[in-house]
Amino acid sequence: MRVLGIDPGLTRCGVGVVEGVPGRPGKLIGYYVVHSEPDEDIALRLLHLDKSLGELVAEHQPDSVAVERVFSQHNVRTVMGTAQASAVAILAGSRAGLPVQTYTPSEVKAAVTGSGTAGKAQVTSMVTRLLGLDAPPRPADAADALALAICHIWRGGTRARIQAAAVAAASARRGGPRR
Amino acid sequence: MRVLGIDPGLTRCGVGVVEGVPGRPGKLIGYYVVHSEPDEDIALRLLHLDKSLGELVAEHQPDSVAVERVFSQHNVRTVMGTAQASAVAILAGSRAGLPVQTYTPSEVKAAVTGSGTAGKAQVTSMVTRLLGLDAPPRPADAADALALAICHIWRGGTRARIQAAAVAAASARRGGPRR
Repeated sequence: MRVLGIDPGLTRCGVGVVEGVPGRPGKLIGYYVVHSEPDEDIALRLLHLDKSLGELVAEHQPDSVAVERVFSQHNVRTVMGTAQASAVAILAGSRAGLPVQTYTPSEVKAAVTGSGTAGKAQVTSMVTRLLGLDAPPRPADAADALALAICHIWRGGTRARIQAAAVAAASARRGGPRR
Repeated sequence: MRVLGIDPGLTRCGVGVVEGVPGRPGKLIGYYVVHSEPDEDIALRLLHLDKSLGELVAEHQPDSVAVERVFSQHNVRTVMGTAQASAVAILAGSRAGLPVQTYTPSEVKAAVTGSGTAGKAQVTSMVTRLLGLDAPPRPADAADALALAICHIWRGGTRARIQAAAVAAASARRGGPRR
């Protein structure tokens, strides 16, 4: 099972691709950070992110996509951009007909470290170990995206397969706007 | 000049298409509301909105797209969905190579009523009058989307043309992810 994990952000969006099966150490396929400048036009930033994620999905042909769920306890201005980036991330999967699953930050932390309140350093350290890497992935956005992919592989299964069927059906449908 | 206005929302997304020139009453081309159910999977909701807006852009071939800018003073849970919907709305324009402009609610209200603090009923009433309609457009999401399109026509011009050039250049560029 190959999973593309996305840690959404407008300025830095982390992407991690991992192959594996539940309960076994995974294999790193690649990781990326898609950048855009905060002072750039929002339409151009979203378009760049959309094209970049679309290209990475086409290149890696994952079986599913895992996206971090956005919460609102952060800085309000940042959260709006993160919510917009998360929509682009989710669409990158669903437009390609792939099942998309969202996970909260604590679900991801718990999956890779055993604790939902683990710090960034601990997550990075476990990702490095679980994927058998010589050095920690940098920057941290990439490590978080890899942790998401690992989380999805370990927890994936029934939920993902049910949703895959629904997405495939929705993609196939002609789906005109309901007026 | 034909403008497609979008009042973003996940549950109800208003779309209004108006043709006109600055300072003259515009002509209504059509209006729509794209629905999705709050209990549906987020990936399916975003996909439905994406497909619907893409189809409306293809059908109406607007010269530009105007999207309401999302603010965070509202209910926090709603705002996340609205921010996600706004990203889909902006992409519907920029993916089609169209210039996209965002306007705050008060800019839209000021453009159609003369007051940035006008109520919904006043906006609907002015939209009905400015477009020469026999009855007010319903629901209110559609009236807001039409107000956005009118606002853009009246204020459009230089800014939109500059951005059109930038979007066209970005769409033409190969634009691989910056790794």
